[in-house]
Amino acid sequence: MLKNNNYSKIFNILKSNNLSYWDNYTKHKFVKNIANGKLKKELYIKYLIQDYLFLTHFSKAWALLVLKSNSTEEMRVASNTLNALINEELQLHINTCAEYGILENDLYNAEEEIANLAYTRYVLENGYTGDFLDLLITLIPCVFGYGEIGRELSKITNKNNPYIKWINTYGSDEYQELCIKIGNMLDKSVINRLGNNFENNLRWNTLNNQFKTATRLEINFWEMSLHLK
Amino acid sequence: MLKNNNYSKIFNILKSNNLSYWDNYTKHKFVKNIANGKLKKELYIKYLIQDYLFLTHFSKAWALLVLKSNSTEEMRVASNTLNALINEELQLHINTCAEYGILENDLYNAEEEIANLAYTRYVLENGYTGDFLDLLITLIPCVFGYGEIGRELSKITNKNNPYIKWINTYGSDEYQELCIKIGNMLDKSVINRLGNNFENNLRWNTLNNQFKTATRLEINFWEMSLHLK
Amino acid sequence: MLKNNNYSKIFNILKSNNLSYWDNYTKHKFVKNIANGKLKKELYIKYLIQDYLFLTHFSKAWALLVLKSNSTEEMRVASNTLNALINEELQLHINTCAEYGILENDLYNAEEEIANLAYTRYVLENGYTGDFLDLLITLIPCVFGYGEIGRELSKITNKNNPYIKWINTYGSDEYQELCIKIGNMLDKSVINRLGNNFENNLRWNTLNNQFKTATRLEINFWEMSLHLK
Amino acid sequence: MLKNNNYSKIFNILKSNNLSYWDNYTKHKFVKNIANGKLKKELYIKYLIQDYLFLTHFSKAWALLVLKSNSTEEMRVASNTLNALINEELQLHINTCAEYGILENDLYNAEEEIANLAYTRYVLENGYTGDFLDLLITLIPCVFGYGEIGRELSKITNKNNPYIKWINTYGSDEYQELCIKIGNMLDKSVINRLGNNFENNLRWNTLNNQFKTATRLEINFWEMSLHLK
Repeated sequence: MLKNNNYSKIFNILKSNNLSYWDNYTKHKFVKNIANGKLKKELYIKYLIQDYLFLTHFSKAWALLVLKSNSTEEMRVASNTLNALINEELQLHINTCAEYGILENDLYNAEEEIANLAYTRYVLENGYTGDFLDLLITLIPCVFGYGEIGRELSKITNKNNPYIKWINTYGSDEYQELCIKIGNMLDKSVINRLGNNFENNLRWNTLNNQFKTATRLEINFWEMSLHLK
Repeated sequence: MLKNNNYSKIFNILKSNNLSYWDNYTKHKFVKNIANGKLKKELYIKYLIQDYLFLTHFSKAWALLVLKSNSTEEMRVASNTLNALINEELQLHINTCAEYGILENDLYNAEEEIANLAYTRYVLENGYTGDFLDLLITLIPCVFGYGEIGRELSKITNKNNPYIKWINTYGSDEYQELCIKIGNMLDKSVINRLGNNFENNLRWNTLNNQFKTATRLEINFWEMSLHLK
Repeated sequence: MLKNNNYSKIFNILKSNNLSYWDNYTKHKFVKNIANGKLKKELYIKYLIQDYLFLTHFSKAWALLVLKSNSTEEMRVASNTLNALINEELQLHINTCAEYGILENDLYNAEEEIANLAYTRYVLENGYTGDFLDLLITLIPCVFGYGEIGRELSKITNKNNPYIKWINTYGSDEYQELCIKIGNMLDKSVINRLGNNFENNLRWNTLNNQFKTATRLEINFWEMSLHLK
Repeated sequence: MLKNNNYSKIFNILKSNNLSYWDNYTKHKFVKNIANGKLKKELYIKYLIQDYLFLTHFSKAWALLVLKSNSTEEMRVASNTLNALINEELQLHINTCAEYGILENDLYNAEEEIANLAYTRYVLENGYTGDFLDLLITLIPCVFGYGEIGRELSKITNKNNPYIKWINTYGSDEYQELCIKIGNMLDKSVINRLGNNFENNLRWNTLNNQFKTATRLEINFWEMSLHLK
């Protein structure tokens, strides 16, 4: 049942307004190579290391969302997501990297690629300078994009795929439920701030552009992940 | 001519919504004692020292407004105000304190009273966590309140008043022009973000409360200034 | 065994450097009136409401500590504390207030007293402008002070005390363990940044002053809590 | 005389620690094409537009340095630099673009390239999350690099070079004096915080890496400027 949830009404509007970018991101060659298992192991390891660095900053961005919240309900959703990222997703990367012989200390000290740094610093700076919506709108392309990818790939991928654990993480009920909770918060928080007629609000255009920029930065991250250097 | 300017349409709405607080602030006993010259010298010195510490943080709040700006025009007004505060108003406090035998280093290291700290940290935190309007709305009670006080007191005070320099600073054309420029920016920035129908915007109530809180913090600052400890 | 833990070596140095402030805080009349059960119910309710507002901002300050962390270990301790505050301590206040007939919505919309606002905005602004240590040093007077109070009061208070639930919260093993974890992090994080010879570091004096200011703000909070308005 | 100033002792240490990156930046093909006047006009226009967007964010980063300052002296240098950027350098870009038929409104609404965004958001986020030094160290590669380039190119470039105005801006005494003032502040602020023995301070390694990253982001910006898309 979770498999068909669209997460959020507002996410779907943003997605259809930026559909070519969204498809370039969620149907990227890197994703296809994960799906068919043909991604080279060295590229997967590189991706895991960069994604570990990404997650430490992405977790911080969710902590920032707690600061930008207007209600204890928003604070709870943001802090529960922070918790899932730090205590589960980050730990999963540490464990997977350990299987490939990479220690946590090496992860923390790896050099960040510019494509990686560009994305997280954009999100964090948008949050520091802006408000709750400025930040949340740049967080959702990652959350929901991985949700869609996980959901699709877990339908088609065979069990011998070397990246099955990654696929199952984002296809899992736990991850899909997280997406639904965040989707509910997105819809409520936009309507609470911009009203039901949010598409006519003076801020809507800016929020659309922020969604687009974060999606461009996702594509750029996949591009980086297709090359060793 | 400057003497009759009301600075800003939106300021006047906020003021009339919070009129008893506004009057408690701008017609406070401390202000009356400045006007009639009966304020004790020790209290004036205490005020100057605390106000120096206030200004270092208040300047930082105007720097934060540069960060929160949405246009180069907003950036210019905010940075020009920052400049006036650091290069003129702060310098005036240093010079006046020097006349009373207090060195700048003593100023910088003086212990902040809680009433002082409460005000500037409220403003700064509101700015860090919120957006341009959240911040600007808490900056204007100080700017416009001193503008009104300076304008009124410079009409009625005689030249032998020991605090005439203070009065003339805020009654000067330079200061009144600064108020008018900031007032113009306030009106434009509210309308650009909330529309012409801003009083029906979902945020208006919050902005009103922020204006009220900053005004309460001004009253609390005057209260502190009436007692040596 | 937990009952005798001193939480942290560095906390104990800071405490003895500011002992008269520390005693004014942890042995305040409000605390004594809790201990002997003589605190008026109306004052306790007022305190609970203000403390609820305090906790929403204090939680945000712990979220900010996640942002200021230099390692995943620091991130984990900060985010686990945030979690405990939002999902347990804040919830406890909501439940206790409900027993007294006060709804969560009333809590969230109650007017913050200046003494309350002064404290949390000082902590938050210190964190936004400063680094990990600037923030952590202003968080510990609250955490460890309540820890000491809870530990002492749970030894001496009889079971019929109307405030026994409050006392047992901070005297509980769970809360004492939280203090010990945060104490460990404090010692490690200071030594990692300032070295073993931290008391000779150029920043040490500033950190001491920040600890003192936060303690003054705790005393001021208790003072406020002794008067209905 | 200004022509031989090295700006700052600490900058020179950082530069020699990262010399290959520094040379890749200051002797980049883009710089050579400016020097010999062979840069295509379309690329120069693209660069000007992206650099205008860069400057609006870079100005904000100098405003953030005001917030992170520990003394009124640091506040003054930072706010004077902010002023020069907003009222002079930004204005110069607006004027030059106007000569090429590009309006300020088009500038403000142009799409930021990822290489551009990566740089400014890195600097701003470093400043928001870190302290004065974390921020200043990422600001100087731009300031001093342009200073060195302007100084060198103004020696060798002939007057008919189409980019002579750009060269003379950064080679001018005004700009060189700004570099010297910022260099003095850098040396003082590092020594005030880390002591004379700063190279043994626990933070020195991190500051070096931040300098290196900002320099990598400068190179990446020039790379972007060599291609129309």
